[in-house]
Amino acid sequence: MADRFLSSGDNEKIKLYRRLCSDKKVRRETGLFPLEGARLVSDGAALGADYRYIFATAEALEKYPGCIPADRYGDRLYRISPELAAKISDTGSPQGIFAVCGIPDVHGIFREIRPRGRYIILDGLQDPGNMGTVIRTADALGIDGVAACGCCDIFSPKAVRSAMGALLRVRTMCGGFEETVKLFSEAGIPIFSAVVGEAQDIKECGFSRGGAVIIGNEGSGIPGGHITGLPVTIKMRGNANSLNAAMAAGIIMWELMR
Amino acid sequence: MADRFLSSGDNEKIKLYRRLCSDKKVRRETGLFPLEGARLVSDGAALGADYRYIFATAEALEKYPGCIPADRYGDRLYRISPELAAKISDTGSPQGIFAVCGIPDVHGIFREIRPRGRYIILDGLQDPGNMGTVIRTADALGIDGVAACGCCDIFSPKAVRSAMGALLRVRTMCGGFEETVKLFSEAGIPIFSAVVGEAQDIKECGFSRGGAVIIGNEGSGIPGGHITGLPVTIKMRGNANSLNAAMAAGIIMWELMR
Repeated sequence: MADRFLSSGDNEKIKLYRRLCSDKKVRRETGLFPLEGARLVSDGAALGADYRYIFATAEALEKYPGCIPADRYGDRLYRISPELAAKISDTGSPQGIFAVCGIPDVHGIFREIRPRGRYIILDGLQDPGNMGTVIRTADALGIDGVAACGCCDIFSPKAVRSAMGALLRVRTMCGGFEETVKLFSEAGIPIFSAVVGEAQDIKECGFSRGGAVIIGNEGSGIPGGHITGLPVTIKMRGNANSLNAAMAAGIIMWELMR
Repeated sequence: MADRFLSSGDNEKIKLYRRLCSDKKVRRETGLFPLEGARLVSDGAALGADYRYIFATAEALEKYPGCIPADRYGDRLYRISPELAAKISDTGSPQGIFAVCGIPDVHGIFREIRPRGRYIILDGLQDPGNMGTVIRTADALGIDGVAACGCCDIFSPKAVRSAMGALLRVRTMCGGFEETVKLFSEAGIPIFSAVVGEAQDIKECGFSRGGAVIIGNEGSGIPGGHITGLPVTIKMRGNANSLNAAMAAGIIMWELMR
């Protein structure tokens, strides 16, 4: 294994990796996304991720033994130089392990909605770090799915890094806002819209029939025309403006699952 | 105003700013910390922050009018060149506004503990981004105070940036672990320790007598010898390993204030 050595940034596989890092359109067209880091690649392998190529330095293979199970992925493993690793890395201190991964089926339009399921609909979330944190928290709390409408790409390197392994576990979909809300409505899931100001206290909602809560953009919230179902709010004693979008989404998911 | 112009990184005031950015010891010894960005400096000014020096480019003063009230801070304002701004900035695209601020009294050892108050004790939190997010969330939810024991510095540039204006509003203190727990115990505040695994469900605690909840380090939690009072846990249906430290602290603060 790893007897194939790539040293040049001109190699087609390396060029693909770099284009997947920088270009959302390439990710969408190829159905592939890039992963970096020993923990992430190893977590993915444990979940049976559909890796097409894995690039690793000799140093990394030594430092993280067992990170890449040879029986499953050996034929897709390519050794690279530390110089090339530094060149394609998205971080200041690369661990030297990278993968090109097929976007799993779990990320298609939800074909089935769980009866009384608990979902969130992100409407215009723009920061990839927030997106990753929301997906990671959804995984922790056991949310049934996350729908992203008009958001930043959930497969961008920064979102993938913030989401950790959660991106390979949580059901997500990207779709238009109207069709997404219709999907949940037709499945009998009550719709809620998270707003700032006068609205039903999220603590008093009761989600026994399930719920899909719409959460808006970092700066401007949900666009006026998109407010659907029951408006709900996080009532606070402090300075409401301080709550970060990912934290607000986390508290809403916590109440959804409480 | 702003007729004083600094163009050299060798200026003593600029050198102080840079040392405050890079060296925790300098922050502690001088009782000063650095702030960067129009929003942060302007929020601080609205709260009457104790700015000793403000540095701004001509472009920034034009772009963010009213950001620095001239009547209060005019005599402490220095104009700098865009080149110098780029040099001292901690971000890739500097807005060109910086301040050296006195650490306010609100950050000393708590002299008074509010009866039935709600507090958190951070024990060994290491990531400045998490620290800032926790302080920002404490501000949003109206937590009475945040005690940091053996943590990263809450006045590091990254923590200050993540905390936004909250750092100028939330009561914080830094102290030894034992003395901090004693402070709350003697004030009659029940102590809780947030742990992973079997423990009292945080949803069923009831904080009517107030509470100070100890929250541990990102990777290793609370050191065994520090577990004090009632162990409590965030019960989840999902993948518990996914919950980020700041998000866990946020959910605990939400339950404390619920």
